Amino acid sequence: MRAAVMYVAGDVRIERVPDPSIVEPTDALVRVTHACICGSDLWPYRTMEHLDSGRRMGHEAIGIVDDVGADVRTTRPGDVVVMPFAFSDGTCVFCHQGLHTACLSGGFFGTLDVAGAQAEAVRVPQADGTLFALPIGRDDALMASLLTLSDVMGTGHHAAVVARVGPGKTVAVVGDGAVGLCGVIAARRLGAVQIIMLGRHEDRIALAREFGATDIVSERGDEAVARVRELTGGLGVDAVLECVGLAQSTETAINVARPGGAVGRVGVPQDETMPASQPAFYNNVTVGGGPAPVRAYIDELLPDILEGRIEPGHVFDRFIGLGEVPDGYKAMNERESIKVLIVV
Amino acid sequence: MRAAVMYVAGDVRIERVPDPSIVEPTDALVRVTHACICGSDLWPYRTMEHLDSGRRMGHEAIGIVDDVGADVRTTRPGDVVVMPFAFSDGTCVFCHQGLHTACLSGGFFGTLDVAGAQAEAVRVPQADGTLFALPIGRDDALMASLLTLSDVMGTGHHAAVVARVGPGKTVAVVGDGAVGLCGVIAARRLGAVQIIMLGRHEDRIALAREFGATDIVSERGDEAVARVRELTGGLGVDAVLECVGLAQSTETAINVARPGGAVGRVGVPQDETMPASQPAFYNNVTVGGGPAPVRAYIDELLPDILEGRIEPGHVFDRFIGLGEVPDGYKAMNERESIKVLIVV
Repeated sequence: MRAAVMYVAGDVRIERVPDPSIVEPTDALVRVTHACICGSDLWPYRTMEHLDSGRRMGHEAIGIVDDVGADVRTTRPGDVVVMPFAFSDGTCVFCHQGLHTACLSGGFFGTLDVAGAQAEAVRVPQADGTLFALPIGRDDALMASLLTLSDVMGTGHHAAVVARVGPGKTVAVVGDGAVGLCGVIAARRLGAVQIIMLGRHEDRIALAREFGATDIVSERGDEAVARVRELTGGLGVDAVLECVGLAQSTETAINVARPGGAVGRVGVPQDETMPASQPAFYNNVTVGGGPAPVRAYIDELLPDILEGRIEPGHVFDRFIGLGEVPDGYKAMNERESIKVLIVV
Repeated sequence: MRAAVMYVAGDVRIERVPDPSIVEPTDALVRVTHACICGSDLWPYRTMEHLDSGRRMGHEAIGIVDDVGADVRTTRPGDVVVMPFAFSDGTCVFCHQGLHTACLSGGFFGTLDVAGAQAEAVRVPQADGTLFALPIGRDDALMASLLTLSDVMGTGHHAAVVARVGPGKTVAVVGDGAVGLCGVIAARRLGAVQIIMLGRHEDRIALAREFGATDIVSERGDEAVARVRELTGGLGVDAVLECVGLAQSTETAINVARPGGAVGRVGVPQDETMPASQPAFYNNVTVGGGPAPVRAYIDELLPDILEGRIEPGHVFDRFIGLGEVPDGYKAMNERESIKVLIVV
């Protein structure tokens, strides 16, 4: 079959690779129909060192179950399934508490251990715990929005949950990528009254407004902080969604929170440390977050997509075939595209 | 009157200073009967640069109200009051949400702006919001425990609240000073089933056990982390109380938390940064905390002290007069004393 393989920063190719097969009795094989390129794929795209064997990329997909291992009980061939970016058994202590990304038998797609989903097919470990069968056909009009359940919508929702967004809260979203934009959807959905998007790209700002952003701050650093305070009576916001992962964005996130506020961070940290002292400590600002347990959130978010109350699929502004994946990386890396949908 | 003045690291003296007077109409003057030396006083004791004017130390006290300003309504001369380490108006948005240490009209005692309470008397700004009148006489047998409401008991409680301690939770306490020991009391009081104290001093360990610690870990760094994991089925604890403030202790705190766990930190950070990436992010560990709104917690904690259910006063192991304050600093700095009570 064909699959995307990254060999070094900037070098991602579509190549012929062996078809996947059942390895563990809890595996399923999924024929991928729709996949994505993720903002987090851009970190290796910018920095990865050379690997002879390459890395099989991609961790978001919808597909059709082709085959299942002997111990798979609930997943059936023919199911149209969404594949969260992490696999999980659904039965361990962490899955039971809704933190599937800490599953004791879990792991991540698109790593050296488990091949990625920018491919014609993917092996899914822990199939019963991981895959979510969708009540739709493979050509459903809602496909783009449903695909965001595999990562960006669940991740934006996680940032909002960790930042304790709720009715009446004021919110700032740091990062105008697909996750930040989904964070706006999540914040509005959870009842925020003011949603300030920190961003400067016209297309993204327009989308943020469509999703519910009430204010846009295009300044950066200290000026952005000052502007957010101005917009919030000098106090800062209750909740901050950090959807970038850089040192500066994390610092900005902490600095725009009001005393007693919370930062939910979902941007993969690109630095070893974050500010510990002023103002995080002195303002009693809580910093939480991490890889989103998107599997846990599908139950809650799915009805809103099926009934049209949220449309996170609008983050996709480029639709390509598998062969165009290298161009898709380039477009996202150069910010010519917010998020790329791959029709396999 | 006499008061403790610190001029440079290691140099604290009892000197004659002008009596305090009412400056703002919301002030009260309090004749101090009992004060303390705090673990956080040891940071300037170790590192303070020379100040010609000196710094008037101390932020924990019980005393008797001597006089009040024209706008003071509820505080009356003769009241026996506990003075939290921060002053606050009790009426602003942050006081109303219980975060008195972020009061818009607030501040801290023992700073260059507002003189400290290791003195015969202290000026208390925002008297009505700050002072808590106690239903006791000045010689009450519970005085030592009541005095901890001004800081260490409320601070240990804050760490536990921020770390989301509750019934059935497993807890680690990093730091065996007075705050950490009060954190043990708080964790037990909130229903923790396992309380692991990280400490190595025999007297402190004995006190931790008296307060409810179920396990003691005397290792440090990676070995301490391994030992805590061993004690918790390999998972780590639900809640960590960081009661030191150093880079290593913060790292240990984050490392002993289980995925999805929370760190409540109340040790004043001595470093600019803390770990951002592994494992805080990948484990979805939440890090919160800061200066404890001890004023907010008095209502909840006072009945337990008055009715003898908790005895945080046991953290005091040395009782001195005001003239012996320099020796008190020395004893605490050399860890010959856990906490010093000053009978003024």
